[in-house]
Amino acid sequence: MSSESSTNLNPTAKTTGLILGFDPGLSITGYGIIRVRNQQPELVEAGILKMRRDRTLAERLKELHDGVTEILGSFPIAAVAIEQLYSHYERPRTAILMGHARGVLCLAAANANLEVHSYEATKVKRMLTGNGRAPKDQMQQAIRLQLRLKEPPDPPDVADALAIALCHYFTTKQHPQLSDQKLRKKP
Amino acid sequence: MSSESSTNLNPTAKTTGLILGFDPGLSITGYGIIRVRNQQPELVEAGILKMRRDRTLAERLKELHDGVTEILGSFPIAAVAIEQLYSHYERPRTAILMGHARGVLCLAAANANLEVHSYEATKVKRMLTGNGRAPKDQMQQAIRLQLRLKEPPDPPDVADALAIALCHYFTTKQHPQLSDQKLRKKP
Repeated sequence: MSSESSTNLNPTAKTTGLILGFDPGLSITGYGIIRVRNQQPELVEAGILKMRRDRTLAERLKELHDGVTEILGSFPIAAVAIEQLYSHYERPRTAILMGHARGVLCLAAANANLEVHSYEATKVKRMLTGNGRAPKDQMQQAIRLQLRLKEPPDPPDVADALAIALCHYFTTKQHPQLSDQKLRKKP
Repeated sequence: MSSESSTNLNPTAKTTGLILGFDPGLSITGYGIIRVRNQQPELVEAGILKMRRDRTLAERLKELHDGVTEILGSFPIAAVAIEQLYSHYERPRTAILMGHARGVLCLAAANANLEVHSYEATKVKRMLTGNGRAPKDQMQQAIRLQLRLKEPPDPPDVADALAIALCHYFTTKQHPQLSDQKLRKKP
């Protein structure tokens, strides 16, 4: 597994209540960590975990788990956010394989005593753009604006992970009691 | 998670080259451990891991992982066997959730440095009964005969786990070079 961090803004700043979003996959898992300062979400770090394609399923899951555990040990994460499962998938076998990766991410979060919050894809899009069917480029621009980035986040796995993390932030902002309960929970 | 062992035959006997079969599930995961003595497969232990239904997905995955890790630490397992994924499932959402459990089992095996062998359901049935579409009761009788049990294995999760373990044994018996390579691999 190779971890490719795309950004690490000011790592010396005081970081509290970090939100970690994931876009799970067996080949590539995107992750994005945000914090909130003065009611403003900021990018802390984002990147991908890349599993070696010539490895067995079990070996790739171990690579993924090791990578995620390292991230969870490196940042004071307060909440983990991930996309909700759909009822229907175009490619069920791919979806089941994604389920293996998602299971390992949930396990790593549980082992770190963190709650996993899941959001439907349409809710994530609606929260960020007002449109539950927003196309990819509109989502990327919304993430860029929210996090005040120079460029839209790339690759898509990172954009999706950041979108989920932002969705969790906006949800807790709308429902502060959720924020009180959930964001103060520490590993 | 509660571990309910149904059988533990002669735990003091020398055990080598144990095969551990799983029937993964988020509510109940069946497991079955067999050994081979004088070309004869024998039951070592079988049971279920039962996850608490009122727990979150992540918590249940942690319970499952803890239970499987305990089993892997308690027996000198040489190989892990599990059902192959299909291409089509009647209930995709259930299958994706099963994928979460399957991913955690594969991870636990990889962490124990064990290879995971997977077999198609039709192959498992054909290996045990000669019929790739054998009904449940025929499979239970075949497992009972092969392992010389007084009663057919029950619940179904245990029967399926033992069937997978037996399928791996018969496969390595047909292909001794596979047995040499795989069964001698130790955790």
